[in-house]
Amino acid sequence: MKTKSFIPGTVYLTGAGIGSPDLITIRAWQAIRAADVILYDALLPSELLEEARPYTELIYSGKLAGRHSMSQEEINRRLIHHARSGKVVIRLKGGDPMIFGRGGEEALALLEAGVPVEIIPGVSSLQVCAASAGIPLTHRGIATGFRVLSGDPGSLSRLNAGDLSRSEETLVFFMARDRFRVIIAALLDAGMEGSMPVAWVSDAGGPSQTVQIAELKSAENLNPDPDQPGLLLVGRTVSLHFQLPVPGEVSHAVSHFL
Amino acid sequence: MKTKSFIPGTVYLTGAGIGSPDLITIRAWQAIRAADVILYDALLPSELLEEARPYTELIYSGKLAGRHSMSQEEINRRLIHHARSGKVVIRLKGGDPMIFGRGGEEALALLEAGVPVEIIPGVSSLQVCAASAGIPLTHRGIATGFRVLSGDPGSLSRLNAGDLSRSEETLVFFMARDRFRVIIAALLDAGMEGSMPVAWVSDAGGPSQTVQIAELKSAENLNPDPDQPGLLLVGRTVSLHFQLPVPGEVSHAVSHFL
Repeated sequence: MKTKSFIPGTVYLTGAGIGSPDLITIRAWQAIRAADVILYDALLPSELLEEARPYTELIYSGKLAGRHSMSQEEINRRLIHHARSGKVVIRLKGGDPMIFGRGGEEALALLEAGVPVEIIPGVSSLQVCAASAGIPLTHRGIATGFRVLSGDPGSLSRLNAGDLSRSEETLVFFMARDRFRVIIAALLDAGMEGSMPVAWVSDAGGPSQTVQIAELKSAENLNPDPDQPGLLLVGRTVSLHFQLPVPGEVSHAVSHFL
Repeated sequence: MKTKSFIPGTVYLTGAGIGSPDLITIRAWQAIRAADVILYDALLPSELLEEARPYTELIYSGKLAGRHSMSQEEINRRLIHHARSGKVVIRLKGGDPMIFGRGGEEALALLEAGVPVEIIPGVSSLQVCAASAGIPLTHRGIATGFRVLSGDPGSLSRLNAGDLSRSEETLVFFMARDRFRVIIAALLDAGMEGSMPVAWVSDAGGPSQTVQIAELKSAENLNPDPDQPGLLLVGRTVSLHFQLPVPGEVSHAVSHFL
């Protein structure tokens, strides 16, 4: 396969995929191997950093508790500094940079500083979750589309009964763990039927993946693991999960709260 | 990096990514190299098939005009037949199998026949389009989520003024080329403001990528290339496109119809 060339002085905003290191794209993997400097986030398969050359500078810029965290301003400052030094700079993020990855923000800051930017897409937890939990995001006759939201109050205020009663979209909530019960309550308040299936998928595609399934009306019984990221899926495609096993190397615990 | 083992008798529903061969995941690329049989669709980078071993059987099952097409029943029948013969069977699709890829349908048919299935995610045109056209799907203060729809009448009937006037979601329409003007009219009818920016991105990430930008009220002037697949993006993040150049090897024509 043709190898892409990586240009010194450029910042590559790169999606690493999520869950398993081999879910990275070949282009992103080559970017890691071409990097002089990698600023990397918390939620990505850590084995990927071992693919970098020995002299590549690895800088942690994640925001998980217990390790040093870096402000967005500091991240931007460092990306600009290293790019201006003529280095191949990789900004490595879990998932995809343009889906809750601040790719746009960082790109704009770099461009304002005159630094060239390229964005390398990655599979999002959205897709890894769908694949490893066996929950299609679209499915003929069941879901003609899907809707990706965050658990913030603005997103929740957009949910309304008119939308939800038609329920032909799979809803996927990011950053929902700490507002899990608020979201469930908001969906019920907005008029979604109590029998709608709901899945909490934790560490999708990763070594400790778990899938918990309930109906919306009893979803308060689900127990998101406070130490694991996860996605909340709501919609009729969730019920297909029962029929799709998950082969492969993932340890796969499923709990039903029906 | 650890190499995954592929199990004879299993069908791997595999996303090939889209736009450029190096946007495939390492796991999917390894699947191609491990395959005894590959049933492949139309919309994927054709160079990927050259990665298969010489004796791998390559079966075209796409639905583009001018080449032999195969019904879904025939595809399922062949997948089952080859898996039962103890082969490593790869069902290779452009993008991601769970986003308008019929991954769920094929998985259910295989499981019903007792054939083991694994789904390998891929980057969707959704993400490749966002990366190569520089249009974030989410962006702090501009889009707190996004919504993926098809151009079919059912999807369009779900659009309503209440939703659209809040306009904090980026709308992404798949399979929209032939219903382009119908969708634009439906958005205006549903009450979306005429100044909303709209992008038509054709062959995202591919050698003939083009990006056309307009305001919704004049979007009828856009000209989707009838020979190229494309995505329609609608929302305030589209206006960020102007600030994000697209470096790299993609020939990149942008037309503004403002």
